[in-house]
Amino acid sequence: MNCKRLMQAMFFFASLASIAAAEDSIPLPNPTQMLWQDAELTALFSYDLHVFDGERYNQPKNRITPIKDHNIFNPTQLDTDQWIRSFAAAGGKVALLTATHETGFALYQSDVNPYCMKALKFQDGKGDIVRDFVVSCRKYNVKPGIYIGTRWNSFYGVHDFKVHNDSSQFARNRQIHYNRMMEKMTEELMSRYGELFMVWFDGGAHGPELGGPDILPIVEKYQKNIIFYHNTQRADIRWGGSESGKVSYPCWGTFPYPFSHSTRQKEIFKNDFKLLKEGDPDGKYYMPAMSDAPLRGYKGRHEWFWEPGDEGHVQPLDNLMEMYYGSVGRNSTLILGLTPDATGLLPAKDSIRLKEFGEAIHKKFDHPFASTSGKGLVHQIKMDARKTIDHAMIMEDISMGERVREFLVEGKTSKGWMLLYKGTAIGHKHIARFNPIEVSAVRLSITKSLAEPQVRAFSVF
Amino acid sequence: MNCKRLMQAMFFFASLASIAAAEDSIPLPNPTQMLWQDAELTALFSYDLHVFDGERYNQPKNRITPIKDHNIFNPTQLDTDQWIRSFAAAGGKVALLTATHETGFALYQSDVNPYCMKALKFQDGKGDIVRDFVVSCRKYNVKPGIYIGTRWNSFYGVHDFKVHNDSSQFARNRQIHYNRMMEKMTEELMSRYGELFMVWFDGGAHGPELGGPDILPIVEKYQKNIIFYHNTQRADIRWGGSESGKVSYPCWGTFPYPFSHSTRQKEIFKNDFKLLKEGDPDGKYYMPAMSDAPLRGYKGRHEWFWEPGDEGHVQPLDNLMEMYYGSVGRNSTLILGLTPDATGLLPAKDSIRLKEFGEAIHKKFDHPFASTSGKGLVHQIKMDARKTIDHAMIMEDISMGERVREFLVEGKTSKGWMLLYKGTAIGHKHIARFNPIEVSAVRLSITKSLAEPQVRAFSVF
Repeated sequence: MNCKRLMQAMFFFASLASIAAAEDSIPLPNPTQMLWQDAELTALFSYDLHVFDGERYNQPKNRITPIKDHNIFNPTQLDTDQWIRSFAAAGGKVALLTATHETGFALYQSDVNPYCMKALKFQDGKGDIVRDFVVSCRKYNVKPGIYIGTRWNSFYGVHDFKVHNDSSQFARNRQIHYNRMMEKMTEELMSRYGELFMVWFDGGAHGPELGGPDILPIVEKYQKNIIFYHNTQRADIRWGGSESGKVSYPCWGTFPYPFSHSTRQKEIFKNDFKLLKEGDPDGKYYMPAMSDAPLRGYKGRHEWFWEPGDEGHVQPLDNLMEMYYGSVGRNSTLILGLTPDATGLLPAKDSIRLKEFGEAIHKKFDHPFASTSGKGLVHQIKMDARKTIDHAMIMEDISMGERVREFLVEGKTSKGWMLLYKGTAIGHKHIARFNPIEVSAVRLSITKSLAEPQVRAFSVF
Repeated sequence: MNCKRLMQAMFFFASLASIAAAEDSIPLPNPTQMLWQDAELTALFSYDLHVFDGERYNQPKNRITPIKDHNIFNPTQLDTDQWIRSFAAAGGKVALLTATHETGFALYQSDVNPYCMKALKFQDGKGDIVRDFVVSCRKYNVKPGIYIGTRWNSFYGVHDFKVHNDSSQFARNRQIHYNRMMEKMTEELMSRYGELFMVWFDGGAHGPELGGPDILPIVEKYQKNIIFYHNTQRADIRWGGSESGKVSYPCWGTFPYPFSHSTRQKEIFKNDFKLLKEGDPDGKYYMPAMSDAPLRGYKGRHEWFWEPGDEGHVQPLDNLMEMYYGSVGRNSTLILGLTPDATGLLPAKDSIRLKEFGEAIHKKFDHPFASTSGKGLVHQIKMDARKTIDHAMIMEDISMGERVREFLVEGKTSKGWMLLYKGTAIGHKHIARFNPIEVSAVRLSITKSLAEPQVRAFSVF
């Protein structure tokens, strides 16, 4: 075994020499992308008029049915502190809010979209939940982000980015007006609330080349360091190809295009979004995958929005842990969908589950039996005593790029070194699960890498 | 001559006997219609977002072009008192305001249409020009009315009553939403501002039978005594068939249908709106004609809305007097279109012209040489001294219905009785103009009438 390892290592160093020049071409994350991956656990708070309609949310129907009376929006116990406190208890680091979703209603004081909180009796038309949300995020050391829906607007009559229409001049004029409204709303949202960590244009923002608004220059003007997701020109992260809270393995942090996808890019969607789920180890653009899923997604439900009587669909803790392994444990970031109720609070059940989730993560990963870090192909840890382990957590220092292509985890048992796990991608973080085994030492061996491996952490539990 | 008159009278009384029973079937105005005709001079104040865009108003273009930025609406010197004071100086008795016109923007605090003054920075989103307008009207003893546009809405995408559309479910849903919004706006406008004298749904409000909102029951619930204009079920007045400020002569105060017209009723529109212009002396419904025209309608212009550099198109006084003769003098009511400017004031030129108009009407009609009134076919006035006259003003007591069908005005000159004027309809008021002539007595002879004539006034000037 030792002899085999040595040969592998010799062969590998020969390979490394031949690709030393490749180091310069490894895509690197920008500082915000590094923070994004460090966040690991993030949330999208979805809130819109139909939370208050007392009905079950039905996306295809809601998309084409304007809300009868926007003054149903009346969260009398609104408390964004409670939202964020609940999320922070899970260990969440980044939270986004749907400033607008598919009704077209804006949760702030827009000067360009009259269908906003100015139109409400609630808080005498002076409410600004985006402001409240951002303030609460800062209070609890959670980075704030904003989600903006431009693709659907049941009030204004927008269907899949297009003003619901014929081909008349009127439709063209309203498209121009709508696009400008979206640009100006983007400007309002990017300029009014201080530094934002992320902006999410759902379904992509389209671009002028598709007859949509030209939002990217506006975002870039006001938010130099933002995670921009996304339009046909730029994406700093990519959708992970499902709303399951998981990605495939391997899930590479690189991608062949500077944009993640748009509805027009069928190439990216083929094979059930395989490219989005897996990424491309040879991709020239650093663009890690996110794994989004609603907390209320249990037993055949998949609810981004609160609706009455839906508490039974809050995911059990075990399922959340599986999501954690399937996302954070696979070089992705989990975006958990949370939705406050019609009183303005995150429901108790959801809030409690988040706390349990945070405690479970802490319990599992706060106290490794052993840890190491550093450069190189082989990282061995001798343990103080024999321990029964069943997890390894491996992180690359992705500031140097995602380098590792194949690796092994071995454990020194009473019968000698044994292979515990064989993997491919590591990236920001990989959590390897294997059968419990008693070991006195563990070893991470990188058997294929684009350049010298930079191991930020190797821990066993 | 006397012999001939006697024979006419004998013949006429014989006719009267045969139609005595017809008296019961003469359509009578309701009390509000009587006030409407007594008002004689009314105004429509038109005010909308595009007053502030610095551009020439172009109705076909504006109808299909949403306003780029509604916050251009910023009348820093807004003074509805000045509007109404200016109009009252012309002798105006009823004033309407465009609560909404074709942009869809509502000049008040709507809870159902977010595209309203709540959306403005102006007055911190708390402005309500409908309220201001009504208060000013009451202050100057002018009866307030409200104009509501449902037919066009460049923001929401409504074109000739229909949500700009295809035949999709989305379009149908938005039509339902829009219709409800119109109904609820009608409720807001009819219930919030006390008793209103008139409501004007431009182009008609459509009705549910045409896929439009069902506004009539709402108006009738809140405003028992209102002049309702109009929908496919009811009209208390009718459009006079042009926007010239004049109607045809004769212009009967009765109409064959309980509704005036809608875009679907081609029968009423034929022959250049002849039926609207003339009415129908045999019509079963009391429905007097209105004569609308913008004050800024001179030299080929026809501007209901203020625009920069348009002062040269304010009608000269002579034209206004011709409108007065062609409307008030023909049993109609003049609705003068007035439009405040972007500062929020009625421009000085318009205001001064209104004052001149009022003074000219007073000068002409305040001091008749002689007057009489009463029942009967012949109304003779012996004058104190010989006077040169050129006008007669005749009014029926329309509370008894419009009875007269033909009449003569004769003057006793130095050469005996001479025919000065031969007319048909009188109705509320008829002003007869003839060549100046010196007379010592005048005589109104009604030569054809449905029932005993009820002369409210017969005056000469």
